[in-house]
Amino acid sequence: MLTVLTVIEAREKILSGLGFRLPAERVLLADAAGRVLAGEITAPSDLPAFSRSTMDGYAVAARDSFGATEAMPALLDVTGEVMMGTTAPAPLKSGEAMRISTGGMLPAGADAVVMVEHTELLDEYTVSVHRAAAPGENTIARGEDLRQGVAALPPGHILRPQDIGLLAALGCTGAEVATRPRVAVLSTGDELVSPECEPAPGQVRDINTYLLSALVKQTGAVPVPLGIIPDSPQALAAALHKTKDCDCTIISGGSSAGVRDLTADAINSLGKPGVLFHGVSMRPGKPLIYGLAGDKPYFGLSGNPTSAMVGFLLFVRPLLLAMQGASELQQLLWARVDRSLSSAGGREDYVRAILYSKERELWASPVLGQSNLISTVVRGSALLRIPQDCEGVEAGEKLEAIEI
Amino acid sequence: MLTVLTVIEAREKILSGLGFRLPAERVLLADAAGRVLAGEITAPSDLPAFSRSTMDGYAVAARDSFGATEAMPALLDVTGEVMMGTTAPAPLKSGEAMRISTGGMLPAGADAVVMVEHTELLDEYTVSVHRAAAPGENTIARGEDLRQGVAALPPGHILRPQDIGLLAALGCTGAEVATRPRVAVLSTGDELVSPECEPAPGQVRDINTYLLSALVKQTGAVPVPLGIIPDSPQALAAALHKTKDCDCTIISGGSSAGVRDLTADAINSLGKPGVLFHGVSMRPGKPLIYGLAGDKPYFGLSGNPTSAMVGFLLFVRPLLLAMQGASELQQLLWARVDRSLSSAGGREDYVRAILYSKERELWASPVLGQSNLISTVVRGSALLRIPQDCEGVEAGEKLEAIEI
Repeated sequence: MLTVLTVIEAREKILSGLGFRLPAERVLLADAAGRVLAGEITAPSDLPAFSRSTMDGYAVAARDSFGATEAMPALLDVTGEVMMGTTAPAPLKSGEAMRISTGGMLPAGADAVVMVEHTELLDEYTVSVHRAAAPGENTIARGEDLRQGVAALPPGHILRPQDIGLLAALGCTGAEVATRPRVAVLSTGDELVSPECEPAPGQVRDINTYLLSALVKQTGAVPVPLGIIPDSPQALAAALHKTKDCDCTIISGGSSAGVRDLTADAINSLGKPGVLFHGVSMRPGKPLIYGLAGDKPYFGLSGNPTSAMVGFLLFVRPLLLAMQGASELQQLLWARVDRSLSSAGGREDYVRAILYSKERELWASPVLGQSNLISTVVRGSALLRIPQDCEGVEAGEKLEAIEI
Repeated sequence: MLTVLTVIEAREKILSGLGFRLPAERVLLADAAGRVLAGEITAPSDLPAFSRSTMDGYAVAARDSFGATEAMPALLDVTGEVMMGTTAPAPLKSGEAMRISTGGMLPAGADAVVMVEHTELLDEYTVSVHRAAAPGENTIARGEDLRQGVAALPPGHILRPQDIGLLAALGCTGAEVATRPRVAVLSTGDELVSPECEPAPGQVRDINTYLLSALVKQTGAVPVPLGIIPDSPQALAAALHKTKDCDCTIISGGSSAGVRDLTADAINSLGKPGVLFHGVSMRPGKPLIYGLAGDKPYFGLSGNPTSAMVGFLLFVRPLLLAMQGASELQQLLWARVDRSLSSAGGREDYVRAILYSKERELWASPVLGQSNLISTVVRGSALLRIPQDCEGVEAGEKLEAIEI
């Protein structure tokens, strides 16, 4: 009998035992959001490549405006206009100003922009400036966004829309990202039938193929559903044979002791080291099996959908991200529970709850009902974590929340 | 000159003026996550369809176990085993017990399950029960998850993995969901070149086509990038002609007054009612244009990527969700700022910040630097909202946060 691990021990064992990183592949910018960056991105040149105006107005040498006020304006010669996408027609000399639009390139000799609202055009060639501009005012300096050679994005970064925008700015038409993990999903159980079937008495429809495949997709990985597998060593062995070209396998089902042993035996039969642990001190999801065949990870999750989902979020998801080299995601959400909760010490409890906002604070209302009802996880919008050393929570206490 | 609206007025005007809902289409369960449910889902029959065991043990009539203790066990006749996926070989009579596994169907006459840990098998036909079971103990009753005919999921619900699981449980092989909105994305500006080009002096690379397309995708919609459009009425008119089969159009660019007018004129030229407002009291993103040509919405967002992103999140995203009939998403996140922030009254400020967790609380560290640097929105993980009536925030105060 293998020892039951704590949640932290189990996650540590899974992550530290990971023996491979997925190779990189190049994808177009349009397909790069949500993917994990394979290498560091550095700025190949200054961004912006030239000093730009951030306002509509007049490019000036700031010193020419010093002391200017409504009552004592500075008068400057207007020598032209900077057109968008081009350089100024000529450098700016002392006492001169040039019309410029937002985003325009500052002429040589200019170091500030006076907003058009603070000027008056006296005639075609003369502008009166009513307010002094400090050097750099209403401009972005060359390299102010990013200096040539600095790190713009770290490896392991999960690309967001603004990162895609930055890559475009740096001249990237695509990105090197980690290949998506392929995840085999097997539902085991003699009682299971496909959703399109009308179950006979004693039979139930397969939920976990669809639930787990959707969770795999949500994690940025590719589900490879292998269907419903009867509770027999031969059927399970045949199905597991098809998982050889996947990067990870999830077997769900087998909440009964005999079937759990079947799953463990099947994982062991695939090769060394085999099952690494069998059971995690948590609820729901205690009978979780984890093993390696060579460096290929195999999870045995409970047949109960809520347990399978908790097991996925706590263990499979971090592993799929780690395979892609993703930087660890920080737990951010804390919510106050609006009623007291009891909990048995010695295990972590994951309680389904509905999150809501009240008086500038995140609150959570626990969903009543057994964990083996899928409706509780459908009604909930989060899982609340009651730590292992905690025997209950008072209403108003704060708990970590995982959005679901 | 059209009036500048507040953020709330602008959003209200956009949403209340929406003149259509996208039609429904049927998608397979495997493709349904993230989509918006078109109609209500009700349970076509009880879930589960029969009473099930939640433990490995013995199905019993609870009354036969009343008073049983370690010292005074109840002795019951073992009359068989319930195999998974089938009915019991016979109904249970008084004084009888039947072996059952987790998920097994309770025999007629049984109303509880005694965990195997609380029993001892004395011989092949006799089990001693050491603990009384209450009626219903270690079982899920027929219909306990969902009763036939009850609402399982409301229309407008955005499908999550657990909802996909529930649909499978109810026998759905697909779902009726709103069609994805097709969103035309145009970047305007004489200064813009494609990411693969080396910009000449005065030119910059197009960021917004990629940033906005990624935001459109993140919202579950389909981007239709129409490329870089020069600042000329003819070029813009020709490009807008191609937006007729899209459900929404985003024109970005034109931070200068002249170019903004070009965008407004082009929207007006498409048909009535034309531009509805021009300017929202917020920073960044003030020069936002919104109009309708017939019932087709057109947004003119700033060329500054951060402004365009804020405009998208505050106005375009809610509209794209509303077109799909999605239920409104609640703002959940509140973060304490770790330094004081000043703000001009009379407008909403959206400050880029890095979220982190400290002492069971969400904190936000404002990112320094101008809003027109894309690096600030890349370094940030959230936007903090400083309300319009607020002239500054003290360190430690709570602000609404939008994850980015």
